[in-house]
Amino acid sequence: MALSVSQRGQDMPVSPFRKLAPFAEAAKARGRKVYHLNIGQPDIPTPPSAVEALRQADLRIISYSHGAGTESYRRKLTEYYHRAGIPVNFDEILVTTAGSEAILFALLTCLNPGDELVVPEPFYGTYTAFAIAAGVKIVTVTGTIDNGFALPPLADFEAVITPHTKAILLCNPSNPTGYVYTRQELEALLGLCQRHQLYLLSDEAYREYCYDGARATSALNLAGGEEYVVVLDTISKRYSACGARVGSLVTRNKAVFEAAFHFAQMRISPPGLGMLLGEAAVALPESYFAENRAEYQARRDLTVRRLQAMPGVQCPVPGGAFYVMAHLPVDDAERFGEWLLTDFAYENQTLMLSPANGFYQTPGLGRQQVRLAYILNLTDLDAALTCLEQALLAYPGRTTELTPEPAEAHAA
Amino acid sequence: MALSVSQRGQDMPVSPFRKLAPFAEAAKARGRKVYHLNIGQPDIPTPPSAVEALRQADLRIISYSHGAGTESYRRKLTEYYHRAGIPVNFDEILVTTAGSEAILFALLTCLNPGDELVVPEPFYGTYTAFAIAAGVKIVTVTGTIDNGFALPPLADFEAVITPHTKAILLCNPSNPTGYVYTRQELEALLGLCQRHQLYLLSDEAYREYCYDGARATSALNLAGGEEYVVVLDTISKRYSACGARVGSLVTRNKAVFEAAFHFAQMRISPPGLGMLLGEAAVALPESYFAENRAEYQARRDLTVRRLQAMPGVQCPVPGGAFYVMAHLPVDDAERFGEWLLTDFAYENQTLMLSPANGFYQTPGLGRQQVRLAYILNLTDLDAALTCLEQALLAYPGRTTELTPEPAEAHAA
Repeated sequence: MALSVSQRGQDMPVSPFRKLAPFAEAAKARGRKVYHLNIGQPDIPTPPSAVEALRQADLRIISYSHGAGTESYRRKLTEYYHRAGIPVNFDEILVTTAGSEAILFALLTCLNPGDELVVPEPFYGTYTAFAIAAGVKIVTVTGTIDNGFALPPLADFEAVITPHTKAILLCNPSNPTGYVYTRQELEALLGLCQRHQLYLLSDEAYREYCYDGARATSALNLAGGEEYVVVLDTISKRYSACGARVGSLVTRNKAVFEAAFHFAQMRISPPGLGMLLGEAAVALPESYFAENRAEYQARRDLTVRRLQAMPGVQCPVPGGAFYVMAHLPVDDAERFGEWLLTDFAYENQTLMLSPANGFYQTPGLGRQQVRLAYILNLTDLDAALTCLEQALLAYPGRTTELTPEPAEAHAA
Repeated sequence: MALSVSQRGQDMPVSPFRKLAPFAEAAKARGRKVYHLNIGQPDIPTPPSAVEALRQADLRIISYSHGAGTESYRRKLTEYYHRAGIPVNFDEILVTTAGSEAILFALLTCLNPGDELVVPEPFYGTYTAFAIAAGVKIVTVTGTIDNGFALPPLADFEAVITPHTKAILLCNPSNPTGYVYTRQELEALLGLCQRHQLYLLSDEAYREYCYDGARATSALNLAGGEEYVVVLDTISKRYSACGARVGSLVTRNKAVFEAAFHFAQMRISPPGLGMLLGEAAVALPESYFAENRAEYQARRDLTVRRLQAMPGVQCPVPGGAFYVMAHLPVDDAERFGEWLLTDFAYENQTLMLSPANGFYQTPGLGRQQVRLAYILNLTDLDAALTCLEQALLAYPGRTTELTPEPAEAHAA
């Protein structure tokens, strides 16, 4: 018997978002300008009116709140959901420490250790860490860039469902693909959940950011989903308030709500300062989103237009979130990402991107793909894309050959 | 196969702090004044200078921080630890979402599912919830009110250690007993940890609140503890900032730090607004604590003096925190606590207290004990204690008989 870190501690992955960070730091130390297209940290200011509300708040004693959040914040959040066309009640909303805690509570509540969670890949890489923390196993169903990462065929889901499967987890609109699932896809998935008695966990962090006039369908608005659907939500991206750490778990399943609330009681309360900010933010009118949506859409359009003009690049048009996934004519996107920071510069500038292997669980998949976050203003974004264009021409590992991928990806 | 909540979700206890809450609400609805001696929410204001620093901070984009916390907050926190006589380095401090997250990360990092954690009882009831979330088993060693809840004999610890035991968890100064463990007790416990290769997890939330000129010994200051000790800490009680949700996990064990940091990366960052507040709070001089300490000590003295003057009440003098544990001459403290809210009033006032059964894991223990939190000003505290005195005279279940307790408590 010796002192050692737990197995789950050893299994916890290094964040895929941090792997290239030391190379970026070194590049900056050499005086290089690095455009960050790698992280989902919005550059749009937190709503000034919400910040002002926090500043004006009574902060004499920053005290615990109710475990489900302050009543005033939950009331305002209920109003937000109603305005967003999602008629949920006050007592169906559990305020969490950002979307992260909503994900953790959902896994702890809906799955036993050893149970399986089906997730379409590519998926938000951090789900892996939550699965390890909760002791559950992620099983993937693989999407393809050829159809813009639409929902894989139901038969692929059916093929991986076992008696241990307890839930399906979806991010809609998707991080990392930007794909917006259609109502038909979601209804089909709910039907599958009903047939197999699975929870449908829907991460809707990017709900308000859909483009071309489209709107995302909330899983809460699927007929017959009351018992099955748990929505994981956050104000982080919606109001550029990632550091406030305020999210929510929303479900009409009373047993799930009650158990999740008991997990919430263990940490007594969610962040009080963040809720004060959130209370003012979620009261903002639809025009707030309309303005940001226009900005993000202009950036998406620029990003896609530039990428599609680069020889050998494949880039579907994402309908939402603030990411694009692209296939690049490179041997290995992680090697390319590192090379961008260590060897490349264009007018003393370079960029940092997210190699897509961090978003696939199946080994070998996504080796030539990257995720780009368009969280820069149009000028900087254009400059960053010029760097990418130049880099693709200069990169020694350039190849238009497809890296072979496993034929039966989801079986891996 | 049917849709059901996970076993751990079903096992999660209702917070012991909430059981009597509906009765308190009902009493208030009937126009009754209820003194809350049941919760650890300080009534002393959050330091105004820290609040002002938050208000003045640059809040244009409330963004993610580094997973271990902002560099500026960690630097300031390092200085606080040095001033507190605990020489830890910057890279040994992981900022967490309050003490709660530090506890969760420590359990996830140090123990595998099914492993055992030894905790002296009575203990902070919420540890049970964290143990369920992390899938670990709490095994208790029982303390006694007769010696003020000093550390139970080492032989009692030895008796419960199995090959599955991985850690000992202590709260020092203790919530709920207020006991301050001596350096000798802590050294003996560390010796035990060394002999059996166990982690020593030390929850030091109440470090700064020790009375009669005494100071608490941090487990970080035990010679030879480098590999064994993990301290769980928070600004919640120290600066009356429970709602800010800012804590820390501090360890010199690099493997533990690294794994805990990977768990931290999963939620990307701790609360940013809380860290801004904390940065100003932890820079406050020692005089800040001296002032609050004097206030809390006066309250403790009043509480103990009044309790000891009540016939049939046993109340050791707690050396720290802001709680006292008392043995009351009642048949059942939970029944008494409910009766206080449903049937009793003295000048239309009553009080809410915490029945001690929520702090014992062994069934039947603490049935005649309560925890009182002295988080009221002296005038209100005195009035609350007068209510208690009157209530003990009026309570129909009054008894000076001892409720029989299991002879081999720790074997339960």
